[in-house]
Amino acid sequence: MAFPQPLVLPPGIEASRFEAYLKAVTEVVGAENVTVIHSEDVLTKESYLDPSKAHDMFHVFDKDYFIASAVVAPRKVTEVQAVMRLCNEFKVPVWPFSIGRNVGYGGAAPRVPGSIGLDMGRNMNKVLEVSEQNAYCLLEPGVSYTDLYNYLVEKKLNDKLWVDVPDLGGGSVLGNCMERGVGYTPYGDHFMMHCGMEIVLPNGELVRTGMGAMPNPSASSSDGTIDEQPGNRCWQLFNYGFGPYHDGIFTQSNYGVVVKMGMWLMPNPGGYQPYLITFEKDSDLPQIVEIIRQLRLAMVLMNVPSIRHILLDAAVLGDKKSYKNVDRPLTEEELVEIQNQLGLGRWNFYGALYGPEIMRNAQWEVIKGAFGQIPGSKFFWPEEGKQSPGVLDIRAKTLAGIPTTDELKWVDWLPNGSHLFFSPISEITGDAANLQYSITKKRVLDAGFDFIGTFTIGMREMHHIVCLVFDRKSPEQREKMHKLIRTLIDDCAAHGWGEYRTHLALMDQIADTYSWNDHALLKFSEKLKDAIDPNGILAPGKNGVWPASYNKEQWRLTGASSLQRRS
Amino acid sequence: MAFPQPLVLPPGIEASRFEAYLKAVTEVVGAENVTVIHSEDVLTKESYLDPSKAHDMFHVFDKDYFIASAVVAPRKVTEVQAVMRLCNEFKVPVWPFSIGRNVGYGGAAPRVPGSIGLDMGRNMNKVLEVSEQNAYCLLEPGVSYTDLYNYLVEKKLNDKLWVDVPDLGGGSVLGNCMERGVGYTPYGDHFMMHCGMEIVLPNGELVRTGMGAMPNPSASSSDGTIDEQPGNRCWQLFNYGFGPYHDGIFTQSNYGVVVKMGMWLMPNPGGYQPYLITFEKDSDLPQIVEIIRQLRLAMVLMNVPSIRHILLDAAVLGDKKSYKNVDRPLTEEELVEIQNQLGLGRWNFYGALYGPEIMRNAQWEVIKGAFGQIPGSKFFWPEEGKQSPGVLDIRAKTLAGIPTTDELKWVDWLPNGSHLFFSPISEITGDAANLQYSITKKRVLDAGFDFIGTFTIGMREMHHIVCLVFDRKSPEQREKMHKLIRTLIDDCAAHGWGEYRTHLALMDQIADTYSWNDHALLKFSEKLKDAIDPNGILAPGKNGVWPASYNKEQWRLTGASSLQRRS
Repeated sequence: MAFPQPLVLPPGIEASRFEAYLKAVTEVVGAENVTVIHSEDVLTKESYLDPSKAHDMFHVFDKDYFIASAVVAPRKVTEVQAVMRLCNEFKVPVWPFSIGRNVGYGGAAPRVPGSIGLDMGRNMNKVLEVSEQNAYCLLEPGVSYTDLYNYLVEKKLNDKLWVDVPDLGGGSVLGNCMERGVGYTPYGDHFMMHCGMEIVLPNGELVRTGMGAMPNPSASSSDGTIDEQPGNRCWQLFNYGFGPYHDGIFTQSNYGVVVKMGMWLMPNPGGYQPYLITFEKDSDLPQIVEIIRQLRLAMVLMNVPSIRHILLDAAVLGDKKSYKNVDRPLTEEELVEIQNQLGLGRWNFYGALYGPEIMRNAQWEVIKGAFGQIPGSKFFWPEEGKQSPGVLDIRAKTLAGIPTTDELKWVDWLPNGSHLFFSPISEITGDAANLQYSITKKRVLDAGFDFIGTFTIGMREMHHIVCLVFDRKSPEQREKMHKLIRTLIDDCAAHGWGEYRTHLALMDQIADTYSWNDHALLKFSEKLKDAIDPNGILAPGKNGVWPASYNKEQWRLTGASSLQRRS
Repeated sequence: MAFPQPLVLPPGIEASRFEAYLKAVTEVVGAENVTVIHSEDVLTKESYLDPSKAHDMFHVFDKDYFIASAVVAPRKVTEVQAVMRLCNEFKVPVWPFSIGRNVGYGGAAPRVPGSIGLDMGRNMNKVLEVSEQNAYCLLEPGVSYTDLYNYLVEKKLNDKLWVDVPDLGGGSVLGNCMERGVGYTPYGDHFMMHCGMEIVLPNGELVRTGMGAMPNPSASSSDGTIDEQPGNRCWQLFNYGFGPYHDGIFTQSNYGVVVKMGMWLMPNPGGYQPYLITFEKDSDLPQIVEIIRQLRLAMVLMNVPSIRHILLDAAVLGDKKSYKNVDRPLTEEELVEIQNQLGLGRWNFYGALYGPEIMRNAQWEVIKGAFGQIPGSKFFWPEEGKQSPGVLDIRAKTLAGIPTTDELKWVDWLPNGSHLFFSPISEITGDAANLQYSITKKRVLDAGFDFIGTFTIGMREMHHIVCLVFDRKSPEQREKMHKLIRTLIDDCAAHGWGEYRTHLALMDQIADTYSWNDHALLKFSEKLKDAIDPNGILAPGKNGVWPASYNKEQWRLTGASSLQRRS
């Protein structure tokens, strides 16, 4: 068996040694599940939909920088264990992904070029269980929101059990939860709503967390391999188990590969009404946010609503050219024109009411009364047989847990549209929203781009998601965008705001902003890393956590010097 | 300075060495904050309310078995750090407690006899912050539920912000959350509702978790010691921060000493109505539970309600003698007599409605309709100026977040009343409730005791809390109770049910039941333990997690042989 040379070898691994690794791993997963990334041909826009080509379609560096040497797709848990053992034996870094979407945050690409891309989703994509009685599911990494929803439709359960979905339905339910993504129903905090994990540790050992650590007495040792044993009766019902509660350290981390995860499903709330409230003026933002905080805390707003800037909606409905063919940021007047053209406000608030009609009516009265205080506010419900303003018809699905991919369109605002997400967390106050919006808008406009963003409201904070859209075929735009996001990170840190998640290229910088007491928490994370993964083979550098086996200073990516491919 | 000899020295520490430790630690915290446990006189019933006498008032072993050598009460975070460093230097085990209640689970007593009791609550008992706007508080370990409530009353905030309280108001808010205790309002899952921690690691280092790892730019280095620096603006608003989310591993564990914790407070829901529903027959249990699951999943039951066995209510209202002077378990007929005497059912369901009247009315209609299907069910609301049946007047406070200590009375069901809690988790199904109730009731009656218990209903599981009341002055009863709980643990494990929390004496046995894949998760916990605390000084053996520096097999307590004091 001969393997082609990969574009990038794992660091410190010679070609012959790499070939020996490939040979060994092929014996584990089969030749059809090993793909060497040997040619730039694989790095096309289209190929990002194929996770076997593990790279970042929305590359802000050169497109061949963050790429895997080869992609390995195990077929079952025991193979994942065997792959981890081989990676330890050969000291080859391995970067797991579920489906590999993670758009705006690096796609399927690894932090360390030349890592093995561990494609957990290609073969391990089963809905293992749906409990109608207890409203949960147990999933493998490759189950997308769309897959899960379709499964419920097929089993005629979709009317009974709702899935909380993020903006795009194509991603992995498990992967999104591991990155602590959010959705928009009352079950919008995905980590909070997960229950129970099965994890392959970096040394190849297998654990189940929470109640999963207690055996199911009905399991017999002849039930196939260990991971096929039925789980404990309460594994998907009670997160915490007994003793330390581990699940959190496996999210946004490099401590293990999650191979099964439970997720709570939302029972049909007995009624549903999506709505849109538009607000005319840019300066309405603080008042909107003040009202939201009070209604959200009081649980009148029961779900995770969002306040979207006009251009986010506009970009879903058309590209920039279709509104105005200019290559400078749109002006205030042009934004007003677009508002008028689309029948939207500068800020557009998408929410939903859940529950029986009597409850919904009571909530709606309170919501209308509160937001009605803002001059110019307008209230919309979707109407049968009529197109709703803005993206209300799309959000009406999303907020009812029906996955769509329509929102992907805003990335085409510019030609060869790509994007980075800049995602600081803020308190839910008018002042904070206004200040964070002003700072980011100014920087974005100064850099020559349009501000496109949304605030997603959780229990006591907002995820401010700024969509930094650029033309990936323009090295100049990529460089500008890279500088812009680095500036924004520092700007926000100077005010005490930190990001909840980020692109590969920014992980070190953001980890560095979480520096209280001389980076004590990061040092603690690295101590855990070295204990759990002494060879540092699993996702080194993920979110700034480097194993001792890597020289962190050497690997740190900062500033414009990192724009060129390391070679 | 001369110190008295303690009753028990730390393992492997000679008296002179221990004296040197005491001398050093006294220099850190001051003589008034070091108490040597030198005489059995301190181990009285009354003294359990004084955490400086760190022992278990409700001892199931001899009362001088689980005791500290000395109690050390630091005054501030830097002293906690210094104490940890000294414990490492002297290799002295240290067992932190907040206030030391933890009734039924070991009180303030350490797992390893002779440990230093680290009294975190005596001096560190401040409410550091209450945010009215964002509905949270930041607390030190010594703040009890009653303290926090009184603080809100004093600041005239108690009408705006509610505290979720457990059955007894005397315990530490922080300590309860660390043990993953529960309350009864919609904020009943205390771990879910905490936000942000500050933690002294076993090596004396200090970390803040979540957003707390990002500095507050307004903090200057002249702001006193590091822990006095104001926290990040989102520390109490967003749990997860960036990278691995650590908080869970510091609960029910021995990885760090939590010195500050944020907790979300519940905004006044705009209306409140507590209620009691009584059910006549023992055999009503499965149907009650089936209804509850459906209403809880549908969020018609918005809080954590409970189904209490008649004897739990009866025991709050009087001791056993006051009903029937017998020293055998009460019979079926006698239970019916007590039901009639108290105007209660065999099962008594305490819940509450939250929200504006229109919402409450809608919920109440659904609840009455559902439970009304059970023949003999009766519905009660408290009435002005009239004593309510059962414990409704007490629960009316608890479910509105007003702390009480009235429920402590049931422990006096027997003379010299003490208790152990047996607390398995189960699915919310009639079958599971019935089976778990039958198994435990039979064993309890066979052992010669009365069944006293309650089911507390969470999102998708129930905490079944069995109150094992015994006379602590009767060695025979203690031995019976110890055997009984060991049998119950095995019985439930044989069905796949595990406990969520336990007494010191049972920690190893229960940890052993979480044995999936050859105890893989426990081994992982122990790997973390050795990385975080290489000398194994912090709470060795807590919940079955032993450091490598202890011979686990030697320390394991199993069976009747452990009933005698180790000497």
